[in-house]
Amino acid sequence: MVVKSQIKFIKSLQQKKYRMLNSLFVAEGVKMVNELLQTELKLHSLYTTNPELLPSNEFKYEKISDADLKKISSLKSPNKVLAVFHIPDAAPLNFNGWLLVLDGVKDPGNLGTIIRLCDWFGIDHLVCSNDTVDCYNPKVLQATMGSVARVNIVYMNVKTLVKNSGVPVVGAFMEGEPVYRFKWPAQGMLIMGNEAHGISKELERESTNKVSIPQFGHPTTESLNVATATAILLNELRRN
Amino acid sequence: MVVKSQIKFIKSLQQKKYRMLNSLFVAEGVKMVNELLQTELKLHSLYTTNPELLPSNEFKYEKISDADLKKISSLKSPNKVLAVFHIPDAAPLNFNGWLLVLDGVKDPGNLGTIIRLCDWFGIDHLVCSNDTVDCYNPKVLQATMGSVARVNIVYMNVKTLVKNSGVPVVGAFMEGEPVYRFKWPAQGMLIMGNEAHGISKELERESTNKVSIPQFGHPTTESLNVATATAILLNELRRN
Repeated sequence: MVVKSQIKFIKSLQQKKYRMLNSLFVAEGVKMVNELLQTELKLHSLYTTNPELLPSNEFKYEKISDADLKKISSLKSPNKVLAVFHIPDAAPLNFNGWLLVLDGVKDPGNLGTIIRLCDWFGIDHLVCSNDTVDCYNPKVLQATMGSVARVNIVYMNVKTLVKNSGVPVVGAFMEGEPVYRFKWPAQGMLIMGNEAHGISKELERESTNKVSIPQFGHPTTESLNVATATAILLNELRRN
Repeated sequence: MVVKSQIKFIKSLQQKKYRMLNSLFVAEGVKMVNELLQTELKLHSLYTTNPELLPSNEFKYEKISDADLKKISSLKSPNKVLAVFHIPDAAPLNFNGWLLVLDGVKDPGNLGTIIRLCDWFGIDHLVCSNDTVDCYNPKVLQATMGSVARVNIVYMNVKTLVKNSGVPVVGAFMEGEPVYRFKWPAQGMLIMGNEAHGISKELERESTNKVSIPQFGHPTTESLNVATATAILLNELRRN
């Protein structure tokens, strides 16, 4: 049985403010929780209506009723398992390779997709500006699945970082050089901008190179979505 | 003022069945409607709370109240303009280049993103299996914007198409040949599969080539989302 204080505490973690304060986040659903249980994330507490769904019996859990799960869940149709994990400490950034920098990405689905892309393409460090959506937001988690635990995600003042990094800074711009011709250096930072406004003026000034994805269709087309543009550019970086 | 029969009719178009029956679909919101008004789509009817928001005065519209807009809208917060357009007749497929074929893509956001990618990369014909989500679904439209009017989208039995096309059939598979080594012929069909099950066995048997996107990260990673994989493969096709 879950008591009132537990309900209040777990529900509070739906808000970024309380996630930061407690350095905890909530994951829901059998697939997601089981994937995260198999990463290096530290488990805080685990609730399930059916312990047989857990990947092994090594985890301490509390068996609860469907009604209780509904009380602590943020989902309309709660899915049998809910876990609270500790937010891992950010690891130091390593400039010996490529980092991805996000400048104000706001859509949770886009950030989730981008985290998964970093995982796929072996980008170990993802640096997010402080106004980028929180990576422990439930909608982001839904789109990243286990990748969130395998990429070092750091929130910081990216302007300061970019100014002082000393490595090539490649920004994605509509009017950049066609990426097919670009010779990627061995290390650097790739910057992707906000969905509506792109990369901020301040970061644009710090960019050593501007790249763009050539367009082959009708010229009136809208720009590519930031997540698909990131997919294409990380693929270009790695195929190089 | 909108009368009861209009409300009922417009609301009915939220369902695929009635969209098919009437060969009409609904678009909502200033940005979306204005973009579609500037394509070759044929307008059926246009409702707005503020005619000044329309791109020009050449369109016949009905000025309605906020309350009436709320009655015909499918949105929680209706956005000033609602238009009904005729679904265009599908143009004949042209095999003199590359077609994209979708085998059971279910997620509206994924289909919307893929239509936009076709538009960007100049893929004129998008063939969808009959169990692919309807491209005039409101959530698909939200993700495609005007691209839906610039790509020839055809729903059909893709198995019959692929069997009788006589052009190279390239399927995206986890265990395919790394796409970086693949030499794309001048024409053909690229097949992308369902989010959970990939390409069906029947289409797999008809594939003349299997390609995959190399993975650089941790080997336990989930596969790429179908929309991001399509972005990468269409870029590979065009950079070739």
